[in-house]
Amino acid sequence: MKIVVIGASGTIGSALSETLEASGGHEVVRASRRGPVVVDLARPESIDEMFDAVGTVDAVVAVAGSGQIARIDASSDEDYFRGLEGKMLGQIHLTRRAAHRIADGGSLTLTNGISTFSEPGLSFAALVNGGLGHFVPTAAAEMPRGIRLNSVSPGWVAETLEKMGRDGAQGTPVAEVVRAYVELIEGTGRGLVVEPGVPATS
Amino acid sequence: MKIVVIGASGTIGSALSETLEASGGHEVVRASRRGPVVVDLARPESIDEMFDAVGTVDAVVAVAGSGQIARIDASSDEDYFRGLEGKMLGQIHLTRRAAHRIADGGSLTLTNGISTFSEPGLSFAALVNGGLGHFVPTAAAEMPRGIRLNSVSPGWVAETLEKMGRDGAQGTPVAEVVRAYVELIEGTGRGLVVEPGVPATS
Repeated sequence: MKIVVIGASGTIGSALSETLEASGGHEVVRASRRGPVVVDLARPESIDEMFDAVGTVDAVVAVAGSGQIARIDASSDEDYFRGLEGKMLGQIHLTRRAAHRIADGGSLTLTNGISTFSEPGLSFAALVNGGLGHFVPTAAAEMPRGIRLNSVSPGWVAETLEKMGRDGAQGTPVAEVVRAYVELIEGTGRGLVVEPGVPATS
Repeated sequence: MKIVVIGASGTIGSALSETLEASGGHEVVRASRRGPVVVDLARPESIDEMFDAVGTVDAVVAVAGSGQIARIDASSDEDYFRGLEGKMLGQIHLTRRAAHRIADGGSLTLTNGISTFSEPGLSFAALVNGGLGHFVPTAAAEMPRGIRLNSVSPGWVAETLEKMGRDGAQGTPVAEVVRAYVELIEGTGRGLVVEPGVPATS
């Protein structure tokens, strides 16, 4: 399969790209804000440009970044609404375009996250992730030509926690997260939803 | 109590305003895009202007409109994203400002809707309503000074269905919807969540 990985330069995206090539024998097109194929989900026109550049593809994966911790009453709009344009609206713009661009029977795999929290500062994350969590199954039923739409909620990645000096055992190893994406792309699995448990941090 | 009703000119908003005055003995400030107090949730600065104009209030209620039916792959961005600025982001802008403006121990009551659908054309409604459904309890835990944050999901109102020439018995009478808002404002109830069942229509 020819697969576009958006966010290919991040921890999950780079490991996913390598696995798709090495184990899956797939052709991977690496896309991110810095290239090699340039796309910024916050700029819908860049999504069209990406599809124009890469031609017909069998699968698209978006490994989107997370939002910011910001209390409901104590942050600027810029801090509070971080993730709106890219993670939330960007993945919807991508879905709307992918419905026309992905090959028959192909797949689009989005990235979501935990939407129920007990710590403060996560009301916007709850909005974005809870919204996407309802969007994906509803939109999936409308995707044309047998295109499958799924999402992965990777939660905290063990390797990311370790880079932050925290306990990696509290997260999910990147290899396991990658496996969830691969199974959805290849149509053999049901993805991964990580339940709350690791306190988020700013 | 002094209560601002945003969306006071609509079916629910006008009935709610009358009930709050007649049965509750409350002072109601009617706000909407057309006035008498002007506010447009899609323009955050108008929310500040509204609070400046009305002074300290004990409660704010937003009776927000619904979105549009639009398939994931077959509508303009303008049609598809209807409700983003007003219903979704607008109610969040309102919440962020209300946290500073509502009196100690007061309340903010938002309007949400069904977020799980089996009919096509409702993926954006699922996003907005599912997102708000996760936002409200998370933000409620962060509201300062004892301010309560709740939402009502009125679903289809019987009187609205009848105006559309449909079977009113499939909806909830406006008086029952109004009672749910009043109970949340007065702190005596738990609101109303209407389950799916009435097919949406464009």
